[in-house]
Amino acid sequence: MDAGSGSGDKAEFFTQGRRWLKALPVKFKANMVAMVRNIRKLGQDDPRRVIHSLKVGLALTLVSTFYYCQPLYSNFGVTAMWAIMTVVVVFEFSVGATLGKGLNRGMATLMAGGLGIGAHHLANLSGHIGEPILLGFFVFLQATISTFLRFFPKIKSRYDYGMLIFILTFSLISVSGYRDDEILEFAQKRLSTISIGGSACAIISTVVCPVWAGEDLHNLIALNIEKLGNSLEGFGDEYFKRTGGEESKDDKKFLEGYKSVLNSKNSEESLANFAAWEPGHGRFPFRHPWKLYLKVGTLARECAYRIEALNGCVNADIQPSSEVGSIIQEACTNLSIESGKALKELALAIKKMVQPSSADSHIENAKSAAKNLKSLLKSGIWEDIDLLKVIPGLH
Amino acid sequence: MDAGSGSGDKAEFFTQGRRWLKALPVKFKANMVAMVRNIRKLGQDDPRRVIHSLKVGLALTLVSTFYYCQPLYSNFGVTAMWAIMTVVVVFEFSVGATLGKGLNRGMATLMAGGLGIGAHHLANLSGHIGEPILLGFFVFLQATISTFLRFFPKIKSRYDYGMLIFILTFSLISVSGYRDDEILEFAQKRLSTISIGGSACAIISTVVCPVWAGEDLHNLIALNIEKLGNSLEGFGDEYFKRTGGEESKDDKKFLEGYKSVLNSKNSEESLANFAAWEPGHGRFPFRHPWKLYLKVGTLARECAYRIEALNGCVNADIQPSSEVGSIIQEACTNLSIESGKALKELALAIKKMVQPSSADSHIENAKSAAKNLKSLLKSGIWEDIDLLKVIPGLH
Repeated sequence: MDAGSGSGDKAEFFTQGRRWLKALPVKFKANMVAMVRNIRKLGQDDPRRVIHSLKVGLALTLVSTFYYCQPLYSNFGVTAMWAIMTVVVVFEFSVGATLGKGLNRGMATLMAGGLGIGAHHLANLSGHIGEPILLGFFVFLQATISTFLRFFPKIKSRYDYGMLIFILTFSLISVSGYRDDEILEFAQKRLSTISIGGSACAIISTVVCPVWAGEDLHNLIALNIEKLGNSLEGFGDEYFKRTGGEESKDDKKFLEGYKSVLNSKNSEESLANFAAWEPGHGRFPFRHPWKLYLKVGTLARECAYRIEALNGCVNADIQPSSEVGSIIQEACTNLSIESGKALKELALAIKKMVQPSSADSHIENAKSAAKNLKSLLKSGIWEDIDLLKVIPGLH
Repeated sequence: MDAGSGSGDKAEFFTQGRRWLKALPVKFKANMVAMVRNIRKLGQDDPRRVIHSLKVGLALTLVSTFYYCQPLYSNFGVTAMWAIMTVVVVFEFSVGATLGKGLNRGMATLMAGGLGIGAHHLANLSGHIGEPILLGFFVFLQATISTFLRFFPKIKSRYDYGMLIFILTFSLISVSGYRDDEILEFAQKRLSTISIGGSACAIISTVVCPVWAGEDLHNLIALNIEKLGNSLEGFGDEYFKRTGGEESKDDKKFLEGYKSVLNSKNSEESLANFAAWEPGHGRFPFRHPWKLYLKVGTLARECAYRIEALNGCVNADIQPSSEVGSIIQEACTNLSIESGKALKELALAIKKMVQPSSADSHIENAKSAAKNLKSLLKSGIWEDIDLLKVIPGLH
């Protein structure tokens, strides 16, 4: 019996194993299909991503010719790898981020190189035993101070990468001076290979299909205001429709566009930071007031908070009774539609960089709708109605 | 006359110059004093910053002994600089961030090293002319694909740095193979120096006064809920006090604590990300459900949006008339105080990791205050009063 059940187990094990093996290609295929779909979607959402990837590949291939070309290689030797490194580390999605990182890296290398050479010479004076001790002390002091400076918000937002490279270069150059007397040459090679890598990045990212952080910021702010407008415009209908029936779950996605505005602060700030590094381009001159976009962005976010609170009423179980609803519906819907239109008009004006033409009239309409609502509320409609049905927050 | 006015100008120029020169030390001193005050404040706000800076200095000094010690140097030679580099780049403020970056760097170097050696051998087969072409093609292909993969949100959030190092190491190793036949040794040296640097970071950041991202996340969530509670607790008083007099501008700062919660999403997410890399520590085991903190954080933020909307009423010009105010004041104030107390109780319970003891009773109190308010509104108090004064949003 035991042996029989053992062989039965074995047979079952093999059947399961075979089934699992058979299912493997199917699963694998399904996974692959899902992945390909994901990749395609990522590319379609923003085709600039594909172009950016190709640009990085191009820059890296170009810079690696340093190794293949004998005359170039004999000049730089192994230090050519700094150029490759620079390209990998500095090449970012937008022109501003690339230039910012490149300039940070270049300036920090220059300054730290100079200081490192100074430290090396100072330590050199102190004899064979004193030298490593003094060098170690310098490295410790410099790393500690620079690391602490990185906590300053102003330095962190614009020069964080530069501080990192400063620590790195200072340590490398002052320390390798202990072994290698050709420290000046080492520093000079590091600086020139880094400049070559940095220039390759700067040129390719600026010339080949550039992605401007400033333009992205401009469009993001306009798009956010437009989303707010869309949400407000649809809000009145959504609110009063739901009291009638429950059919409109599909439109909701559209109405919830404002939600992405709630958390846009960080991306706006980093875009504004990058944009400050960019030269003039298209409609944006150098020193375009990018900081003002942040102010507009903050106001848009405050508006989004209010819409979020409003939206809480749509999702709440409590709705106005149908009598009250039918009385105030028109005024309320007008109010939200006109405010929404005004916002969308402003968004369009920002996008096109023109004076908004009809926003004022929409605002006037919204104000008169508000007045209308006011006089409705002042009139006797409340006498027969349970007031609490209109103030959902209190239930 | 002309010459006279010329010498007059000159005299004035010198006087101004002297005044400017005299003012220089004063200005310089003022700037220095301000800077020192800033530095001290930065350190006092979070003394762990000072300790972190010292830790970075220590790690860097330790690793740079590779250059000073003859036996160590003869083993690694110039590649010892990879260890220094690793320390500078990998050492982050929290243990989780350091471990995450270190593991990313180590794993990426291992994988890219293997692939790079494979690419080098493949290219080697294709002869003297084919080799650089094939190598260039590999570098291009690999950089393009890896750069594109970095756009995947999941990869971006946890493995972005690893992808960067993957591109870097693959390019360096496959390309330097063209010049240097001891590519295996090069790859092995790079891997071992990076491991040494990474281990130094991991050990120092975990052992010497560790900063745990998980604990920071835990405290941040509790603190945010406490801030919401404080704001709500003070809200009722603030609202009704302002209708009486305008004396309480100082307390406002306290009430506006909730504002920092509005934009806490990014810091919460990055802390949760770092925390996932951390081993168990203190009250938090390994694989503590850090993602749940993000859910609580999202709810806290939604609450902050409502408080922001409420706060709009305090700042609006329209206030309830004093008659209405005096009638509803008690119920409203109770409602906000009890809700605030419940939130603070929850925050304390999170902080201490215990079941909240009295939060339920506060919520019951808040509910009964709401009922109270309801019955007040149902009673006849409205008949003589302009309704619009109570619904500020409609003005």
